[in-house]
Amino acid sequence: MENTKLWGGRFKESAAKILDTFNASLPFDKKLYLQDILGSKAHSSMLERCGILNKDEKEAIHKGLDTIKEEIQKGTFDFKLSDEDIHMAIESRLTALIGEAGKKLHTARSRNDQVALDFRLFTLEANYKIASLLLELITTLLNLAKEHTTTIMPGMTHLQHAQPVNFGFTMCAYICMFVRDFERLTASHQRNNFSPLGSAALAGTPYTIDRFYTANALGFNAPTLNATDSVSDRDFALDFLYDLSMIGMHISRFAEELVLWSSYEFKFISLSDAYSTGSSIMPQKKNPDVPELLRGKSGRMYGNLFRLLTVLKGLPLAYNKDTQEDKEAVFDSFENMEICLQILNDLVKTMQIHKENMKKACQKGHLCATDLADFLVSHCKIPFREAHHITGKAVGYAESVGKDLSELSAEELCKVDSIIPKEAHLSLSLENSMNSRNSYGGTSTKSTLAQIESLEAWLNLAKITHQKNQRKMEF
Amino acid sequence: MENTKLWGGRFKESAAKILDTFNASLPFDKKLYLQDILGSKAHSSMLERCGILNKDEKEAIHKGLDTIKEEIQKGTFDFKLSDEDIHMAIESRLTALIGEAGKKLHTARSRNDQVALDFRLFTLEANYKIASLLLELITTLLNLAKEHTTTIMPGMTHLQHAQPVNFGFTMCAYICMFVRDFERLTASHQRNNFSPLGSAALAGTPYTIDRFYTANALGFNAPTLNATDSVSDRDFALDFLYDLSMIGMHISRFAEELVLWSSYEFKFISLSDAYSTGSSIMPQKKNPDVPELLRGKSGRMYGNLFRLLTVLKGLPLAYNKDTQEDKEAVFDSFENMEICLQILNDLVKTMQIHKENMKKACQKGHLCATDLADFLVSHCKIPFREAHHITGKAVGYAESVGKDLSELSAEELCKVDSIIPKEAHLSLSLENSMNSRNSYGGTSTKSTLAQIESLEAWLNLAKITHQKNQRKMEF
Amino acid sequence: MENTKLWGGRFKESAAKILDTFNASLPFDKKLYLQDILGSKAHSSMLERCGILNKDEKEAIHKGLDTIKEEIQKGTFDFKLSDEDIHMAIESRLTALIGEAGKKLHTARSRNDQVALDFRLFTLEANYKIASLLLELITTLLNLAKEHTTTIMPGMTHLQHAQPVNFGFTMCAYICMFVRDFERLTASHQRNNFSPLGSAALAGTPYTIDRFYTANALGFNAPTLNATDSVSDRDFALDFLYDLSMIGMHISRFAEELVLWSSYEFKFISLSDAYSTGSSIMPQKKNPDVPELLRGKSGRMYGNLFRLLTVLKGLPLAYNKDTQEDKEAVFDSFENMEICLQILNDLVKTMQIHKENMKKACQKGHLCATDLADFLVSHCKIPFREAHHITGKAVGYAESVGKDLSELSAEELCKVDSIIPKEAHLSLSLENSMNSRNSYGGTSTKSTLAQIESLEAWLNLAKITHQKNQRKMEF
Amino acid sequence: MENTKLWGGRFKESAAKILDTFNASLPFDKKLYLQDILGSKAHSSMLERCGILNKDEKEAIHKGLDTIKEEIQKGTFDFKLSDEDIHMAIESRLTALIGEAGKKLHTARSRNDQVALDFRLFTLEANYKIASLLLELITTLLNLAKEHTTTIMPGMTHLQHAQPVNFGFTMCAYICMFVRDFERLTASHQRNNFSPLGSAALAGTPYTIDRFYTANALGFNAPTLNATDSVSDRDFALDFLYDLSMIGMHISRFAEELVLWSSYEFKFISLSDAYSTGSSIMPQKKNPDVPELLRGKSGRMYGNLFRLLTVLKGLPLAYNKDTQEDKEAVFDSFENMEICLQILNDLVKTMQIHKENMKKACQKGHLCATDLADFLVSHCKIPFREAHHITGKAVGYAESVGKDLSELSAEELCKVDSIIPKEAHLSLSLENSMNSRNSYGGTSTKSTLAQIESLEAWLNLAKITHQKNQRKMEF
Repeated sequence: MENTKLWGGRFKESAAKILDTFNASLPFDKKLYLQDILGSKAHSSMLERCGILNKDEKEAIHKGLDTIKEEIQKGTFDFKLSDEDIHMAIESRLTALIGEAGKKLHTARSRNDQVALDFRLFTLEANYKIASLLLELITTLLNLAKEHTTTIMPGMTHLQHAQPVNFGFTMCAYICMFVRDFERLTASHQRNNFSPLGSAALAGTPYTIDRFYTANALGFNAPTLNATDSVSDRDFALDFLYDLSMIGMHISRFAEELVLWSSYEFKFISLSDAYSTGSSIMPQKKNPDVPELLRGKSGRMYGNLFRLLTVLKGLPLAYNKDTQEDKEAVFDSFENMEICLQILNDLVKTMQIHKENMKKACQKGHLCATDLADFLVSHCKIPFREAHHITGKAVGYAESVGKDLSELSAEELCKVDSIIPKEAHLSLSLENSMNSRNSYGGTSTKSTLAQIESLEAWLNLAKITHQKNQRKMEF
Repeated sequence: MENTKLWGGRFKESAAKILDTFNASLPFDKKLYLQDILGSKAHSSMLERCGILNKDEKEAIHKGLDTIKEEIQKGTFDFKLSDEDIHMAIESRLTALIGEAGKKLHTARSRNDQVALDFRLFTLEANYKIASLLLELITTLLNLAKEHTTTIMPGMTHLQHAQPVNFGFTMCAYICMFVRDFERLTASHQRNNFSPLGSAALAGTPYTIDRFYTANALGFNAPTLNATDSVSDRDFALDFLYDLSMIGMHISRFAEELVLWSSYEFKFISLSDAYSTGSSIMPQKKNPDVPELLRGKSGRMYGNLFRLLTVLKGLPLAYNKDTQEDKEAVFDSFENMEICLQILNDLVKTMQIHKENMKKACQKGHLCATDLADFLVSHCKIPFREAHHITGKAVGYAESVGKDLSELSAEELCKVDSIIPKEAHLSLSLENSMNSRNSYGGTSTKSTLAQIESLEAWLNLAKITHQKNQRKMEF
Repeated sequence: MENTKLWGGRFKESAAKILDTFNASLPFDKKLYLQDILGSKAHSSMLERCGILNKDEKEAIHKGLDTIKEEIQKGTFDFKLSDEDIHMAIESRLTALIGEAGKKLHTARSRNDQVALDFRLFTLEANYKIASLLLELITTLLNLAKEHTTTIMPGMTHLQHAQPVNFGFTMCAYICMFVRDFERLTASHQRNNFSPLGSAALAGTPYTIDRFYTANALGFNAPTLNATDSVSDRDFALDFLYDLSMIGMHISRFAEELVLWSSYEFKFISLSDAYSTGSSIMPQKKNPDVPELLRGKSGRMYGNLFRLLTVLKGLPLAYNKDTQEDKEAVFDSFENMEICLQILNDLVKTMQIHKENMKKACQKGHLCATDLADFLVSHCKIPFREAHHITGKAVGYAESVGKDLSELSAEELCKVDSIIPKEAHLSLSLENSMNSRNSYGGTSTKSTLAQIESLEAWLNLAKITHQKNQRKMEF
Repeated sequence: MENTKLWGGRFKESAAKILDTFNASLPFDKKLYLQDILGSKAHSSMLERCGILNKDEKEAIHKGLDTIKEEIQKGTFDFKLSDEDIHMAIESRLTALIGEAGKKLHTARSRNDQVALDFRLFTLEANYKIASLLLELITTLLNLAKEHTTTIMPGMTHLQHAQPVNFGFTMCAYICMFVRDFERLTASHQRNNFSPLGSAALAGTPYTIDRFYTANALGFNAPTLNATDSVSDRDFALDFLYDLSMIGMHISRFAEELVLWSSYEFKFISLSDAYSTGSSIMPQKKNPDVPELLRGKSGRMYGNLFRLLTVLKGLPLAYNKDTQEDKEAVFDSFENMEICLQILNDLVKTMQIHKENMKKACQKGHLCATDLADFLVSHCKIPFREAHHITGKAVGYAESVGKDLSELSAEELCKVDSIIPKEAHLSLSLENSMNSRNSYGGTSTKSTLAQIESLEAWLNLAKITHQKNQRKMEF
């Protein structure tokens, strides 16, 4: 009986059946088929340039790889678990298709640098896709913000009404988070865009190869510097998993607010029917399933990050099989985030904003208390701490008579503390209050518009930076 | 156009296409098909007993469910993503098969308690399977331990040779870990073996149902106490994920040693060829891929635990869609652990123990230094701290002349410190040293045999306890 | 120059200064001083019983240890970083106080089993304290539940009004979580209550000692079975960290609701002023800082669990210095949880329940929709799925005319679907709806009272079980 | 009785005692005293420039703050728990020292932006310190690498001997990791170096302030863009915790190898006595406690990251008290990493490299097998896959006769497969093998020297970049 494993030369027993399932990464790493084919094409082009393959061999390899790509994309490729991984699956098929030349492809290369290359390419392209989706989401949120720079809502801290803000300003807060997320992705891309191909098993290769050629052909900045580090490094995957965790965290915060705002208690927004679901038992329910699920996806992002951090803890150099556990984490986080960002984008576009409810909510919670305190500081020339104390008493009085602070008459205010002048209660209008916060980054309509302008300028620049990260390959 | 969603009565728009993919749990929760069918059979039997269904309806339901089970197991069942989850998929098909009676099955039940039931049943059965595999592994390790109660190896602390121990004793250490793992699983099973069925959406049901009947029929201890807790509780899943994390951690420790012991530096064991793999570039390599992968699987176990812990953090009552993220974590940890335990069992059975290398290793590292110190305490009546100090000097001397402590002559020992009597160097034999540690739990062959006996007694009892957790269903 | 480290015999260089800070655990492990003293007293009593110490030595040791305890408790003990850990600090002082006998205390013992003992004792006692606090919290919540079995509030799923429930019933849901938490602690206590003392470095000891005596004297079930496992096992700490993570998760869910209920939008409760704080800038604010902080503490609990899981991943046997990282995690989680439970208890006791607001909230959200569906099933003999559909249409109609379903007249209902009988709208009262859910575990007042009764019975039993875990020591 | 809390105006009850302990952050946030004082000085200078304070007031404030700084640094400052946090503690003392002017300092500022500023300043400065330490470590490792470009050791994959490499090359692998760590820190610094000061509670302030002045005065790039985001954003802390986790992970890998290399089995290095410790029971032990502890510290880094990720999951805008849990995580990870890097640096400088043992180890494991395969490819013109297979057979033969592949004679090789030419066995020298891997990033001495040169060039540039991140303040 022939042992069909390519590395089986010195093995006497045939590998236990159950092991195929355990060891094999093919069921999940077949997602890397395109990266594997591209890497092999670049590698063989380089081998030809360096005189290690002749032109015919190289062309046979390229043609064979194109055939395999087609077979996979058409679904006619026969994935065999005994091939263990996508690299072996493609190589076996290539040799079946083109004979000897296929066997030469593996010259000056090891599975260690091959898998490092394929997975890194995948991760960087995934990074690019997520960054694209972030730019789309930011665009949507900016449009929404622009429409609502005069839509007053209660700004909250501790989930308590704090000060009146506008809804556009609140959207800008979320945009700022996604802007940092984009910049984090871009920095990760830049830091990790180096090609491990040609590092071989762990120590480089005796063949005279040109790693700069393959790096360039595959769209990398340069080859990696050290072969051992190249095959054991998974920083690129961890950076991406962390970046996705941060996006997941920001989305969970936004989703929490969408759930709150959809509740009967808030009713600040209505999700489109398309983005809600019903109950199998309660006919009246319209559930914000989508934001809930978006919120819950953060767990998956965090879990995958910690999965890989754990795997790498305490691993000696260089390649160890433990790192086979890296791919599913990245695939899972990436694919889930991809759909999360698309759905969040659509959900935001189609949700209805209930301006009147937002405004009505501002009539509870003495939202203008800070304004009274500020008024006392500027008109009565007392320190803020004292003004704060006096206003606190006024709030206490209002509550005791069941009114909002803004509903107190000049006389009532005066009774609270004789230092409060008559005109003080005029300061207690929501619009005045909101627009008075006109400092840089503040909530006044004017300041919000300035923020939107800055963010649009950022967006235009970001699109250009982003374009540069689109991978161009040529070999 | 009909909206085919069962809860679609009040919805005007048709749900966005991409949402089907996002919301649907069918691609993964179809693993619960058997639990769903069993739950529905018990539920309908109960409804009949309580006069809510008549006998014909109940029988039609049971027959329909049996048909569906067969269809799924034969692979002819048509899973439609638009059905969203396995519960709806089965219910739709049931109604198609048997008409009106199928629609009545959902009486006095909600998807909330239905999913809580199915997932809990699955988790408890998975718990049982893992516990079975642990008992098998413990049996294997006990057999191995029994063979090696006189196989001397260097006991290590800080990866430094510490004292001579026997290999059977070391195996007992790992057995003790797996014993705790088994007991942890058993406790989790006991604590969570309660039926949520009949809790309905969150508040119970107006129908006069018998939750004790269904609990009993499905093999639970009793029904859960509070309907709201029942539909939002995922402690059973977290307990299981934690239990698996602990097993994963223990396996990672064992696997680390298997990797070390397989190295050229140690050569304490050889893995069977079936449990090793080769290198695509280095023909001489025989890699301990299997223990490495076993070690790496801990990351997955930890990650899945933290995934679900994150999801549940800060969730208000009762059911929220976020918890749909619970199942994949459990499926993934369970399936991976199932195969890990099987493979570890086989790997241990087939590995070769190199006694001679273990013994040779004991000749490095002054393993008997503690024995000299103990000898000084008992023969020279000096406090241990002083004996420790004198022995330290003897070790220093031995190193300075390039010998192991055991190789020093009586004269040399005497030169180190005149308090050391001539007969002291006789205490420095490996067998004597190992067998001298005869305290309860110690490494002497006698004590190791006693440990093995205790563990066998435990195992016999554990099998009985375990048997009781095998689920018996009748309805 | 004398090297003052007790293990310094063979070391030539004096340890680098910065290392003292790095290696030393004294700054945090001095919390174990009491456990260390108790362990040493039990150990020396045993040594005397076994003839290894004479009576005078033993008594000198006990007296010396009592003096040290007093010094530490009075604050006069001189902790020196150069002593590295609490064990050395106490031993050095003991020798200074009583001379030679002090040095003999360490016979048949190593720092490895000593630290394993002290830390395990601490953890088990901490477990006991947390369990006590849980019983107090459960008592408080039961009292609250009893007062509110007729206080109607909107039961929620997806943060949407679902069905009317009573507040006592909701409290029972949280009690059920804490009941499981208590049982989890109890199981952990039981599984880990074994004494490692006498395991020595990793292999037992040649002295004829009595580990059953010390185990019994210190309140353990029995000694641990295997010496190597004993010094490397940290399952007891992980189990406790997991148990605390689960409590932290449950608290975070409760806290989330307390924050929601305190908001202007809900106003279901008011926290006592003592459990709220104000704002330095907004005079009207009354912030639910305490529940927010309670919610945030879950992060600490999870983080500490993951910290230790990471440390133990892939550690070979037996003791490794990495595990020194175990204690701070346990101390931090324990101390924080101790205060969390006390504060949550007080907060619940002092908060004000706004029954009227809870009831008013029930008038939004068509809470009785399921009742209408159920009514149609039982009176019109139609399957639930159809009744659900018809009710959906009724809700749609109510929304279109700006009413709650309960406000629709018999005529209006009839117009929605002619199958709806006149008397249907009588089913739409909140009290009727709530009390109709009378199944086991349901929300009816009757069923809630039954739950409370069961929980009280459980509590009485739990107190007895708990009492048995109170450690009794005698030596 | 006066309520002394500054925000206590409207509170009737005095806060419960235990709450002071629970709510107060003073015990840990007093570490921010310097940042708080600097922020207040910049803020008051700005207030003067904007005409909100007069010159005398500003100068009184600066002088008062200088006094407070001195008091704290001398240890004479009276920290009162009732002040809750460092911000209040300093403000109270300032008012006590300078009267009315002190109360005015809080104008146009809230505790929300104040704490955001102080914590961000601390984190960015901590980032700078860690980056400095990384550059020092890289310098040390580069020096070590330079000394060992001809020191042959077995390169490992799967902890199995793979190919001969040089020790300098292996050090370069670790340097590459720390280079990425430095770049990650730099990117985080750049992305987060924006000033939140002036964002006030969540919405900006009505005062006409100059946030660009304070941003610039405190060494930030610019003020943050949106006030709500500014007070709720903790990305800067998470980025730092992630960066430290990655450093911790890399250190754990290095530390694992240091532990392995220190073992009797490897003996590749000896740690200096100063960086080892002994055993209280085993006099011969020299334990690599320091690398073990370094390895274990990864748990703390991961745990703290996960702690804060959990806290922020699902938090609505803007400030919530939950985030008070952010600081201890950062303090703990930072302080531990600071000492880890210093100690690792010293440990590497003082360890002894055993070249001869490294070389001797290369004689096991058929390290030159790949060379034979490569030789067959280039001399016999057969595909690599076939050469690999033939070499595998040769290895099998060598093992069967108890030799290393390099010890086989030309005749023996020939017997394995007649295709192997006589001169093949000449390719099997360690030096030749190592130096043959001369590709970019490979292990040949020449290639290693080129890597060292590149890394030195990088280091010189990095020092300049780093210098720019040193914070310059002026106000």
